[in-house]
Amino acid sequence: MEKDVVIIGAGPAGLTAGLYAGRELLEVLIIEEGIPGGQTNVTHKIENYPGFPGGIEGIELAKRLKESIDDYKNVSIAMGSVERVIKRDKFFEVVYGGESVIGKAVIVCSGIKQKMLGVKGEKEFFGRGVSVCATCDAMFFKNKEVIMVGGGDTAVKEALYLARVASKVKVVHRRDEFRAEKILQDELKKNPKIELWTFRVVEEIVGSSKVEGVYVRNLKTNEKEFIKADGVFVHIGVIPRTDFLKEIDGIEYDENGFIITDENMETKVKGLFAAGDVRSKKFRQVSISVGEGAVAGLSASEYVESIKRGEK
Amino acid sequence: MEKDVVIIGAGPAGLTAGLYAGRELLEVLIIEEGIPGGQTNVTHKIENYPGFPGGIEGIELAKRLKESIDDYKNVSIAMGSVERVIKRDKFFEVVYGGESVIGKAVIVCSGIKQKMLGVKGEKEFFGRGVSVCATCDAMFFKNKEVIMVGGGDTAVKEALYLARVASKVKVVHRRDEFRAEKILQDELKKNPKIELWTFRVVEEIVGSSKVEGVYVRNLKTNEKEFIKADGVFVHIGVIPRTDFLKEIDGIEYDENGFIITDENMETKVKGLFAAGDVRSKKFRQVSISVGEGAVAGLSASEYVESIKRGEK
Repeated sequence: MEKDVVIIGAGPAGLTAGLYAGRELLEVLIIEEGIPGGQTNVTHKIENYPGFPGGIEGIELAKRLKESIDDYKNVSIAMGSVERVIKRDKFFEVVYGGESVIGKAVIVCSGIKQKMLGVKGEKEFFGRGVSVCATCDAMFFKNKEVIMVGGGDTAVKEALYLARVASKVKVVHRRDEFRAEKILQDELKKNPKIELWTFRVVEEIVGSSKVEGVYVRNLKTNEKEFIKADGVFVHIGVIPRTDFLKEIDGIEYDENGFIITDENMETKVKGLFAAGDVRSKKFRQVSISVGEGAVAGLSASEYVESIKRGEK
Repeated sequence: MEKDVVIIGAGPAGLTAGLYAGRELLEVLIIEEGIPGGQTNVTHKIENYPGFPGGIEGIELAKRLKESIDDYKNVSIAMGSVERVIKRDKFFEVVYGGESVIGKAVIVCSGIKQKMLGVKGEKEFFGRGVSVCATCDAMFFKNKEVIMVGGGDTAVKEALYLARVASKVKVVHRRDEFRAEKILQDELKKNPKIELWTFRVVEEIVGSSKVEGVYVRNLKTNEKEFIKADGVFVHIGVIPRTDFLKEIDGIEYDENGFIITDENMETKVKGLFAAGDVRSKKFRQVSISVGEGAVAGLSASEYVESIKRGEK
């Protein structure tokens, strides 16, 4: 099979890139291993995607993003997990779920995985009290108590952010040293709404119909302790999904493994683009992924047109 | 009056920046001289803003973008035309419609003006056959005849884009030399669907319920000629709206007067951000403005928080 543009991942960035390349009348294949809509599916309500006053259920937005490409017969979605991308002369071969497709251009929109705790209760309450995005979900915990698990820059920033809305933020961290910037650490320690629960690791998230708190292990006393909370935010790190790219030489990554692009979403490898959460950048939001997806879709289309003209 | 963040312009970028700064619980003022929603209001249907399968009326999307900030009591919209922005120590004074507001940070989302022809029929049919955005509106002219007015890079690119969809594209240009890249000019001349009407200027756009064609003046013969078409695209250039910034030193502009920012939407002037069509960039779309608005809103909020901490 041969396509003009192959898009890896049908989250907000991938679907938008597909929409724009589709409107350029190119042949587009989007490959997705889960449900189209990506992370959107696991957020119970999205209040910051403009155009939906009062917010929209994550799963409903995911559905609408997917339906936005349904009118384009030249854009299709294939189910499967991408295993490898291989350079074939100036084109790319993308191998997925036992199939293979040649693309003149490839847009990587494979997103991130959150590093999770892997404890009991985490999966059950995910999207219903357990969250990985304070910017998305803080408003649901207005005047409530929340736990932030983690000690890095993002965890501390998001704990400070939550403290502006929540009545109390309990930061659970396995060490007593934080990797966050000094100034943020100072703020963290000075903030009267923030309690530090250091030298502790979460062992279980508990609740009946909703989250009620967590059991932690105190690493100094080795005792089991209960911390009460209405919500648990996990920020022990994110992992970009880029394994399938390791056979492509010349892609630049930042120190955390995210793909570096220019402002037109083009990587250092001609014909290879990236958009959305997998990109190296400061802020990760549905609206930002959509904007980047549009840029990537238009850039990749221009690139494919230039190939068709015999320019590249 | 004093605000944390003052946003100039309530188009998709400005409203989204307001939404994000609002969710950071900052005090935000958005200043708008027309109808909130910006250019969205003048596009009859928007088919490429993800989340609205089958497209959405421009005016309806504008309304929904505006309503997306209605829940935030800390975000308000003031009506008025911005006259001047003045640096006041580390803050900014924004003067508009006889009022004045001090902002710790300012986000410029003032957009662009299209250079228009200024001929009879142009205003009447705007959004109903007269368009300034091929990427937005080409699909409405599938297998129909259209006119592109202009000879620059954008006009030629968009004429080529239209030729993929329309049955015929008639390029009306006052000279016979084009300012577009050579390779694009070659393509233009080789494309069997494109007719060149050079040495002609449009004098009137005519039609009854819809556009039927244009009267042009042939600059060589000085005769009046009629060119039949179902749509007229005008691309004689755009003008960024930045006049009110001329008292601020240190802002970088590109050769066409658009504001240069880094990828966090920050200009060279600390505390001054820009997002949307007024920014120097390659592609201009509602979805892209929304993404940039989100980034600008978050960046400006971080900046204001750092000021409040006494860092900057």
